[in-house]
Amino acid sequence: MDSRKSIFKNLAIDIPTTSEPRIVIIGGGFGGIQLAKKIVKHPFQVVLIDRNNYHTFQPLLYQVATAGLEPDSIAGPLRPLMKNHKNFYFRMLRVTQINPEKKTISTIIGDLKYDILVIANGAKTNFYNNRNIASQAFPLKQLPQALDLRSHILQNFEQAVMIQDLAEKESLLNIVIVGGGPTGVELAGALSELRKHVLPNDYHELDFRKMGIYLIEGHSRLLQSMSEASGRNAYKYLSRFGVQIHLDTIVKDYSGEKVFLSSGEIIGSKTLIWAAGVEGNLIRGLPEEIIRNGRISVNRYNQVGDYNDMYAIGDVAFMQLEDHPDGLPMLAPVAMQQGVHLAENLIRASRQKSLIPFSFKNKGTMATVGRNKAVVDLPGNFQLGGLLAWMTWMFVHLVSLIGFRNKLVVFNNWLWNYITYDRGTRLIIRLFIPDEKTRNNIH
Amino acid sequence: MDSRKSIFKNLAIDIPTTSEPRIVIIGGGFGGIQLAKKIVKHPFQVVLIDRNNYHTFQPLLYQVATAGLEPDSIAGPLRPLMKNHKNFYFRMLRVTQINPEKKTISTIIGDLKYDILVIANGAKTNFYNNRNIASQAFPLKQLPQALDLRSHILQNFEQAVMIQDLAEKESLLNIVIVGGGPTGVELAGALSELRKHVLPNDYHELDFRKMGIYLIEGHSRLLQSMSEASGRNAYKYLSRFGVQIHLDTIVKDYSGEKVFLSSGEIIGSKTLIWAAGVEGNLIRGLPEEIIRNGRISVNRYNQVGDYNDMYAIGDVAFMQLEDHPDGLPMLAPVAMQQGVHLAENLIRASRQKSLIPFSFKNKGTMATVGRNKAVVDLPGNFQLGGLLAWMTWMFVHLVSLIGFRNKLVVFNNWLWNYITYDRGTRLIIRLFIPDEKTRNNIH
Repeated sequence: MDSRKSIFKNLAIDIPTTSEPRIVIIGGGFGGIQLAKKIVKHPFQVVLIDRNNYHTFQPLLYQVATAGLEPDSIAGPLRPLMKNHKNFYFRMLRVTQINPEKKTISTIIGDLKYDILVIANGAKTNFYNNRNIASQAFPLKQLPQALDLRSHILQNFEQAVMIQDLAEKESLLNIVIVGGGPTGVELAGALSELRKHVLPNDYHELDFRKMGIYLIEGHSRLLQSMSEASGRNAYKYLSRFGVQIHLDTIVKDYSGEKVFLSSGEIIGSKTLIWAAGVEGNLIRGLPEEIIRNGRISVNRYNQVGDYNDMYAIGDVAFMQLEDHPDGLPMLAPVAMQQGVHLAENLIRASRQKSLIPFSFKNKGTMATVGRNKAVVDLPGNFQLGGLLAWMTWMFVHLVSLIGFRNKLVVFNNWLWNYITYDRGTRLIIRLFIPDEKTRNNIH
Repeated sequence: MDSRKSIFKNLAIDIPTTSEPRIVIIGGGFGGIQLAKKIVKHPFQVVLIDRNNYHTFQPLLYQVATAGLEPDSIAGPLRPLMKNHKNFYFRMLRVTQINPEKKTISTIIGDLKYDILVIANGAKTNFYNNRNIASQAFPLKQLPQALDLRSHILQNFEQAVMIQDLAEKESLLNIVIVGGGPTGVELAGALSELRKHVLPNDYHELDFRKMGIYLIEGHSRLLQSMSEASGRNAYKYLSRFGVQIHLDTIVKDYSGEKVFLSSGEIIGSKTLIWAAGVEGNLIRGLPEEIIRNGRISVNRYNQVGDYNDMYAIGDVAFMQLEDHPDGLPMLAPVAMQQGVHLAENLIRASRQKSLIPFSFKNKGTMATVGRNKAVVDLPGNFQLGGLLAWMTWMFVHLVSLIGFRNKLVVFNNWLWNYITYDRGTRLIIRLFIPDEKTRNNIH
């Protein structure tokens, strides 16, 4: 459409200057919206900038990709979260640069001054500079990516019924997942359920014993970020579901048709899902010396370097604590707690009160593996597995969803999927993806 | 992605030949699936071909376009409808040509023989050869089109907050709908509800009194296909909702920014929705003389021309009856009744019984206008309006949805929207639209 080409013509960031200090937040993820929701009730002008007009509940993206949930159920528009606050401004834009000396941010349609800047723009997929993989594997950080993966997998099955060559047929059916963290484990589990309960009913022409689901992990166990017991349990559950797990194995290259493993093995697959790494979604303009492991180094007040008007929270922020010498994990609870905490500190500062250092309350980590099967690590070295862990996982994710409507819709879907063994959203709708470059940098 | 480019490489239509006669159905719309569901239980081999892997409930597309329903709730995958029938084959393909003398259909990956062919591939938008309109207006016949329109409208609002020029701001807000039939009327009503209840909460920076919703109709009244009373009621309701209705007016041209009316008036609008006409979705290969008004002329057995092995049903078929000298209307009930009827005739023919001529049972027509407001024409010159008509409309559309899951999801959404005055699915997700040509010919 015309409008796509001329999208930025004549536009400008025009936000009225008021007596209230302007806080600019880059990113409407878990950290950004927690922060915005708190401070918008106080005498600040709050400007939230995001590439999308919606918040994405990333922990459930894998269920969109596997046809278990519709995209609208795990995302919600950002504006309604702050409705009725006249001091709130949302701008759907990409921030291209930060200019600390001028106290501005740059976008494609112009610059905006800030009094306080909060960088909360999360993480993106890290392909470790492998261009073949970057251009042909499927990442899973954004809603359009999840939708595209869903359509791609289903489209492959539609093609598989129309192909004679057995090797090619298998490469259409096979799915290779790289990365044995929570995303990889949850994807493998969900795909094995599709293979068992849903696909054979749809495709009587295909032999799903020929469909391999491979999970490739570079380390010696699954779920590195969780306890050994949970890693073992996940391994056990997935093996029972028929997932072929390769530990101590690295994907060296991908041709779009063949996956080359460090073991020398070659797997034919037209679907390589890359869940092997993330990195901070950095923006140009910050000095090199404050970047640590691809993230922005912050102190315990989430302040960036020596700037007393710039903060970073969530995945993009690198905060070292005594009990986390390698930095806090890139997880939603960290981002949410930092968002809430920074809001309190900004309100305190506006009242000339001293700032309080952040500390992380670990409430546990978890991953679901499939029907009635999950693993949960609780603080104090407690682990749950099986049905109880699965119910815990469902409860925690339901209550964490933003908005009552999303909770209701997801709950209904889960109930339906559980009772019927069905996955309702198996539509093939290809997405508009402007170009390879923006594909992995959307935000 | 690679797979998109090489999508048809090495593929072939390979359907085993059995002793059962092969019935090939082109199109999984209302007519096609009714037919397929009936005959699949009988000794036929049934091949259903559709460009999409899902059925679309077209009467509710306008609610997807206006953020009231998620796309997955009004569409359902085609394969599960025929599951457990080993004599059923689905192929996701576009049919490019019919070859009656060879008894085959052609696709981009090869030809397929048929014993009996049923053309059921519906209608597409008719732009009456206006290229400017065809390339820049939004049609509303397909799910991706509805999603694209939703994103386009929301994206315009996001741009409107970033623009100074008042004329340009208004052209981003204004929406012009061409065609005062059910689709146009329903769209206008839904948009005026969005304008009243939803958008002002989202965009405190915008003045929605500046947002015009225009409905342009070439005839002297709305809802030509319904009773005069219903047309008058729709006019009254829409006027109250603040829709600006232009009767006896034709859209002559569109620049992408300006809509030129036959009255000389020019409306600035970046959104022109074209609901002014449809035509049969014809396929090459049929003789000219059997095309009537852009549709395929059929007799009362839905037979095409002199071919005793070829049928057409639904929107694409032109069937004259005594009480319908201009042909049966292009409506879902006609397609469904013809699908069921043809199934019975094909079964009868296979048992050497004589065919029964089709007759149309008109159960009424209806259009909803907005909250608590609809118009219904019942057989025997009865009309309903207001709340009772609105409840009738909802009930009929709910029970007509394919599948229990879709009914449940749509019902939940309507309840939610009604109680909260909200529209939950306001996400901007642009779709992958391969090129202009396929855009309006997808099916």
